[in-house]
Amino acid sequence: MSMSLPTHLVAAAVEAALTEDLGLSGDITTNSIIQAGEKSSARIVARQDGRVAGLPLVRQAFLSLDTAMEIDTRIDDGGDAAAGDTIAQLRGETRALLTAERVALNYLGALSGIATHTRSFVQAIAGTTAHICCTRKTTPGLRAFQKYAVRMGGGVNHRFGLFDAVLIKDNHIAAAGGIGAAVEKARREAGHLVKIEVEVDTLAQLEETLRFPVDVVLLDNMDTDTLRQAVAMAGGRVVLEASGGVTLATVRAIAETGVNLISVGALTHSSPTLDVGLDF
Amino acid sequence: MSMSLPTHLVAAAVEAALTEDLGLSGDITTNSIIQAGEKSSARIVARQDGRVAGLPLVRQAFLSLDTAMEIDTRIDDGGDAAAGDTIAQLRGETRALLTAERVALNYLGALSGIATHTRSFVQAIAGTTAHICCTRKTTPGLRAFQKYAVRMGGGVNHRFGLFDAVLIKDNHIAAAGGIGAAVEKARREAGHLVKIEVEVDTLAQLEETLRFPVDVVLLDNMDTDTLRQAVAMAGGRVVLEASGGVTLATVRAIAETGVNLISVGALTHSSPTLDVGLDF
Amino acid sequence: MSMSLPTHLVAAAVEAALTEDLGLSGDITTNSIIQAGEKSSARIVARQDGRVAGLPLVRQAFLSLDTAMEIDTRIDDGGDAAAGDTIAQLRGETRALLTAERVALNYLGALSGIATHTRSFVQAIAGTTAHICCTRKTTPGLRAFQKYAVRMGGGVNHRFGLFDAVLIKDNHIAAAGGIGAAVEKARREAGHLVKIEVEVDTLAQLEETLRFPVDVVLLDNMDTDTLRQAVAMAGGRVVLEASGGVTLATVRAIAETGVNLISVGALTHSSPTLDVGLDF
Amino acid sequence: MSMSLPTHLVAAAVEAALTEDLGLSGDITTNSIIQAGEKSSARIVARQDGRVAGLPLVRQAFLSLDTAMEIDTRIDDGGDAAAGDTIAQLRGETRALLTAERVALNYLGALSGIATHTRSFVQAIAGTTAHICCTRKTTPGLRAFQKYAVRMGGGVNHRFGLFDAVLIKDNHIAAAGGIGAAVEKARREAGHLVKIEVEVDTLAQLEETLRFPVDVVLLDNMDTDTLRQAVAMAGGRVVLEASGGVTLATVRAIAETGVNLISVGALTHSSPTLDVGLDF
Amino acid sequence: MSMSLPTHLVAAAVEAALTEDLGLSGDITTNSIIQAGEKSSARIVARQDGRVAGLPLVRQAFLSLDTAMEIDTRIDDGGDAAAGDTIAQLRGETRALLTAERVALNYLGALSGIATHTRSFVQAIAGTTAHICCTRKTTPGLRAFQKYAVRMGGGVNHRFGLFDAVLIKDNHIAAAGGIGAAVEKARREAGHLVKIEVEVDTLAQLEETLRFPVDVVLLDNMDTDTLRQAVAMAGGRVVLEASGGVTLATVRAIAETGVNLISVGALTHSSPTLDVGLDF
Amino acid sequence: MSMSLPTHLVAAAVEAALTEDLGLSGDITTNSIIQAGEKSSARIVARQDGRVAGLPLVRQAFLSLDTAMEIDTRIDDGGDAAAGDTIAQLRGETRALLTAERVALNYLGALSGIATHTRSFVQAIAGTTAHICCTRKTTPGLRAFQKYAVRMGGGVNHRFGLFDAVLIKDNHIAAAGGIGAAVEKARREAGHLVKIEVEVDTLAQLEETLRFPVDVVLLDNMDTDTLRQAVAMAGGRVVLEASGGVTLATVRAIAETGVNLISVGALTHSSPTLDVGLDF
Repeated sequence: MSMSLPTHLVAAAVEAALTEDLGLSGDITTNSIIQAGEKSSARIVARQDGRVAGLPLVRQAFLSLDTAMEIDTRIDDGGDAAAGDTIAQLRGETRALLTAERVALNYLGALSGIATHTRSFVQAIAGTTAHICCTRKTTPGLRAFQKYAVRMGGGVNHRFGLFDAVLIKDNHIAAAGGIGAAVEKARREAGHLVKIEVEVDTLAQLEETLRFPVDVVLLDNMDTDTLRQAVAMAGGRVVLEASGGVTLATVRAIAETGVNLISVGALTHSSPTLDVGLDF
Repeated sequence: MSMSLPTHLVAAAVEAALTEDLGLSGDITTNSIIQAGEKSSARIVARQDGRVAGLPLVRQAFLSLDTAMEIDTRIDDGGDAAAGDTIAQLRGETRALLTAERVALNYLGALSGIATHTRSFVQAIAGTTAHICCTRKTTPGLRAFQKYAVRMGGGVNHRFGLFDAVLIKDNHIAAAGGIGAAVEKARREAGHLVKIEVEVDTLAQLEETLRFPVDVVLLDNMDTDTLRQAVAMAGGRVVLEASGGVTLATVRAIAETGVNLISVGALTHSSPTLDVGLDF
Repeated sequence: MSMSLPTHLVAAAVEAALTEDLGLSGDITTNSIIQAGEKSSARIVARQDGRVAGLPLVRQAFLSLDTAMEIDTRIDDGGDAAAGDTIAQLRGETRALLTAERVALNYLGALSGIATHTRSFVQAIAGTTAHICCTRKTTPGLRAFQKYAVRMGGGVNHRFGLFDAVLIKDNHIAAAGGIGAAVEKARREAGHLVKIEVEVDTLAQLEETLRFPVDVVLLDNMDTDTLRQAVAMAGGRVVLEASGGVTLATVRAIAETGVNLISVGALTHSSPTLDVGLDF
Repeated sequence: MSMSLPTHLVAAAVEAALTEDLGLSGDITTNSIIQAGEKSSARIVARQDGRVAGLPLVRQAFLSLDTAMEIDTRIDDGGDAAAGDTIAQLRGETRALLTAERVALNYLGALSGIATHTRSFVQAIAGTTAHICCTRKTTPGLRAFQKYAVRMGGGVNHRFGLFDAVLIKDNHIAAAGGIGAAVEKARREAGHLVKIEVEVDTLAQLEETLRFPVDVVLLDNMDTDTLRQAVAMAGGRVVLEASGGVTLATVRAIAETGVNLISVGALTHSSPTLDVGLDF
Repeated sequence: MSMSLPTHLVAAAVEAALTEDLGLSGDITTNSIIQAGEKSSARIVARQDGRVAGLPLVRQAFLSLDTAMEIDTRIDDGGDAAAGDTIAQLRGETRALLTAERVALNYLGALSGIATHTRSFVQAIAGTTAHICCTRKTTPGLRAFQKYAVRMGGGVNHRFGLFDAVLIKDNHIAAAGGIGAAVEKARREAGHLVKIEVEVDTLAQLEETLRFPVDVVLLDNMDTDTLRQAVAMAGGRVVLEASGGVTLATVRAIAETGVNLISVGALTHSSPTLDVGLDF
Repeated sequence: MSMSLPTHLVAAAVEAALTEDLGLSGDITTNSIIQAGEKSSARIVARQDGRVAGLPLVRQAFLSLDTAMEIDTRIDDGGDAAAGDTIAQLRGETRALLTAERVALNYLGALSGIATHTRSFVQAIAGTTAHICCTRKTTPGLRAFQKYAVRMGGGVNHRFGLFDAVLIKDNHIAAAGGIGAAVEKARREAGHLVKIEVEVDTLAQLEETLRFPVDVVLLDNMDTDTLRQAVAMAGGRVVLEASGGVTLATVRAIAETGVNLISVGALTHSSPTLDVGLDF
């Protein structure tokens, strides 16, 4: 896994998260009970099996409060942890360990949860040529990190926002007066490095779409029979993305239709956290 | 429900979310296809049964892009929607409707998901005297809104951060050299308006804790038999909070032990989104 | 004094203060006259007797402009300086010393002024069981630091904002239709870790308040006779806070009535600065 | 008084102050007791005689929470209030009145305190040709507003920061190797719209300074006899500023020496607040 | 021209620009001379022929200081002004007109300068099938607005940053060990909505590149003969972009080679401002 | 050149520029092709003759992405580079070199372009007593850096904003009812460290202006004959600044009239970039 977490966003994100947790007065429990300067060792432990994601945020959280904290990572982002495994070993100021604990674990649990959920979809379609893909149904403020977690789970990323690719949906088509008109307007305005995707509900719409210069077609809520016909109809001329209510129970059958991508909103909006803890 | 969403945080949160989605170039699909000034009507629809939460963020998202957007709320925050119900009716610039849609729905889905999940726990203990409570296991950056969603679901809030209440855990006790010493240090440092909670694992620890001036005791991972003994032992002298691995299957039995609060981390870290959509 | 200054707020505060003083062009006097790289020694000196507070902000100001600045603190926050005492010895870039001087001294003088003022109130009630307490009458933007300075002076903190404790005043009582109704509404909405204080003007109101589950009662502008009766009436069932026009001349008599807390707005809104200087 | 408060800074300052007071959960007392939508009238009242300053911040605070708040100002910034006078009459949401009250009064009290303190110095030198002037000894973050308050009190402003005028002090002179060398370096680097002031301790230094193209000379800690000789020596060729430990008791004698300006650090670092309140 | 300026960025940009110009004390000339409340009419006039761009920023600048300012646009963004033409008519507070003037004109002049410069390149290649394109050689902080100005001049946009398209250059190829390896790595990591461009210096490199799935090839610093051969070699299989030292003197010959795009860094890094003024 | 770039602004400026270029996903080309940890050497090379300015921003850009980057500057800010000269030698992470390259070069090219342009004006008037001066016609957000670049080119700075000097123009004079009235109002309001400049179009206006206490007179769009008469008329009593449409062709003749300053808006609004590159 070479594509790294967007490190330029880490410091600001962690600072905001710490400020949210520390308010105006800080960790009043720890500060009144634990001596400044006292040191401890602790380890971050997986309490469930899962795929790890989010360690740069974890490091930043502890280093923000103790710049000399020693953090020895045992399982990197993109690696798999079994219940009980040590993900990282830490040694530093006891106050910093206790005060940063929750921010660090909230990031690690949320992102590892997404990576783990993604991994299960990826494993379910092993051997097919399809890829598991995320959507824009992300938690406001966390999109960059959540999309990274999807990659750590073995998935690929859809567009990052409204700004980096064109996705023409039914309302756009209606306003433009047809698929061709919509594609033509988008093609004229968007730069030459911007791809165009069109969402279709029916094979008739797919057939019409294939007459225009589009890069990707999103097949919305089609059953596997229809998807198979769509794959045949497209004949490799465009990338095909299946979308709509995909579950672990249905994903393999969808992948076997020959579509290139299967997008799953639940990866970023409904993944349960991975249970991780800090043991002293 | 009179306790309102922290409205002073809404504008900044929505602006950040829109910037995340719009990047440097904005909604390139909509801007190239939809005429500026064109107007449409649309409605926000629940696609599942659930408890609604997050409408001030929804309003802000649409009004940010069209200050004249008409937004007619049919089901307020804290109200219940059935699948198919219209939550709000909107009329305004088509561009604004399409561009703000995802940010609005991401907030509404996430927060209504938490409210709905909380509601199910609250309903499960109906008739008991216990309350369902959240934790600090929240999504970084969204704590204020998530804790509001818990209230909309009928739950109550635990402390908002490390700053507004003392919660003494095992590491604090070990460092202080005993429960009494830890409580005494905290009591000396914390202001007179700050409550003190102590986390205990055993009845012996509870017994010791009851000798000191604490407001709340967190009973960590005790079975219902032990909880019942804890309730008897406390005899109403402190507020008792049960915590640890609580599920919908176990929550009623816990509530029936007589504890005052049952805290459930999953409310804020693992609630699935509520499925909501925007129909034109 | 173990409760530390909220260090997570220091860097941002100092950066804002330096930007305020440096504008777009920086210290044009020093930059045109002093060679870059030239080094000097200097010491921060108390020009009056007082209690020191604010050194983390001082350190940050100098280190922001010279990361290698050596800063040797002789009197820590919470310690007492006599006129002429060296509070800290510095050695580093002459430019950094001259340019950061005013920001550093403005923080140190303001916070030490509050700590010194608080100390005089604390000393005035020595031997009583009362504590000196601050209010929300702080300088906008400096609350966290000012409340820390109060602690350094030996005082204790009232609530930090509108968010961390309930304080029911006359308008709330009027709107709710009585003390009991107001307390009941607040108790129902506020979390179990939030304390409730009620402000009363008369013994009759106190008597009524004592019938409800409140943690603290604020006795507003009562004379010492009335305060003494209030203490007797409360009989230790609630914490009692005396407030209103307290001065050094009156504080001891108030403390001797047996109230637990005496809140003094002047600590944070009208403390004169402590005179401190930087000598080369 | 035509020079207005820096209105471009008001919205950001008030937003920061409200966030400081509201935290993540807002005014939990008011929100749990007062109905949304309920309206009240209230008036801001002076509880002491004083000079008013800060009303734009007051307006912004209330309007931030209720955009329809009616605010009728009776005594404008720069006007004088007697104890008991109504400064402004307000009508709007009861919640907004109660929640914004403290932020509004903290600004108004602090700035009116400075204006009132300045006024007393200005009145003390009435009939002389001197002006009362502030320094850079301000509260971090409030400099623009505090300097405005000095103007409202009838004083004039010194430089706003290290960036807008040159002030050569002893360390600069020592480093440059003499007054002339220091002035020459500054003159060469600073733009033609930047004035140069030199601080001197003795008449000999003044004599030397007068040989170079400086605009203002700061006479540091001179007694009135020496000041009088300095005025004679300068003969109107430069503006003369007296500085150092000026009090209400000494200021008139200083003004009568004929100096142009008398700078008083205490205006911005040690003015007690003006007592103002909000009466319903 | 339907693709609008990124309006979500306008308010923050203008606020930063006004703060830069107003500092802590505001427009001290205007505030001391012009009465608050006084109104004037003025018009923004082109002093040179040019293509207009930047009016949303102009509007925001004036409205920030006078929310009731009437602004009547005569020539919209993307329209052409002749020397002497009125671009917009304004009526509002005289203070606001004078204070916002420079910020408004700085934006309008800079962006109209880019649009005008772009227009001259676009006109120079009229009748060919090529498009004029910008680069990432923009002014830090202004990229979104500068790329919009290029569109207003009739040009098209290259990628907006390092994040929205892959552009493989010589160092990437060397590190990967060949064009094919570099493309393959990028294809595997980048999402399916991300286009891939490869930069080549020679026809041999182009030939190699054409064997791999790339969307665009950047032909760096080739003479027109070589460009023509490149067009023939590509045979329409990829989009071809000519780049490197393009001037108004050379651009038509380049366009006539049949390349699809000609990128010109000077559009955003070296366009002279368009001379615009505010006449009362 | 001792007046340094405003270093307190560098970190925030570079962070904003990097975020603009990196978006949510970072340098997707480099991250997918170049191994983390791989190191390279590179050098920043001038591709044209010019005056260097902006290296602190360059250093910050590379160090932001690789805190261990070695940066060895060969030609400092204010030094002259010939085409082909190495300005700085770098060694560090290959990813950091490639990812920060464009931000670093965009700053360096833009500021060196201004310095080089300024240098050509300064050289054109060599031997005269005039100085070349900038204006407020700067790029929004870059004023501090652009004015520094003017100094690096040998020019001097005009006021930095509307806040640090008074410049009375025709509209101010008309509103005040005459030059004298305008000057008097400004003098009364502005502090004693603020200079006053008046803009005049005619000798008659100059003559009138000289009757009042002004520091600088701006002679707007006068021909050299008139300028010469103005110099004679002023007789050294005020600083004279010539302004309006100054070019390299006309600047020497203007300088020879004896004016003190010649302000050139084009320095900051229309300087072409200096061509600089990064060679591996």
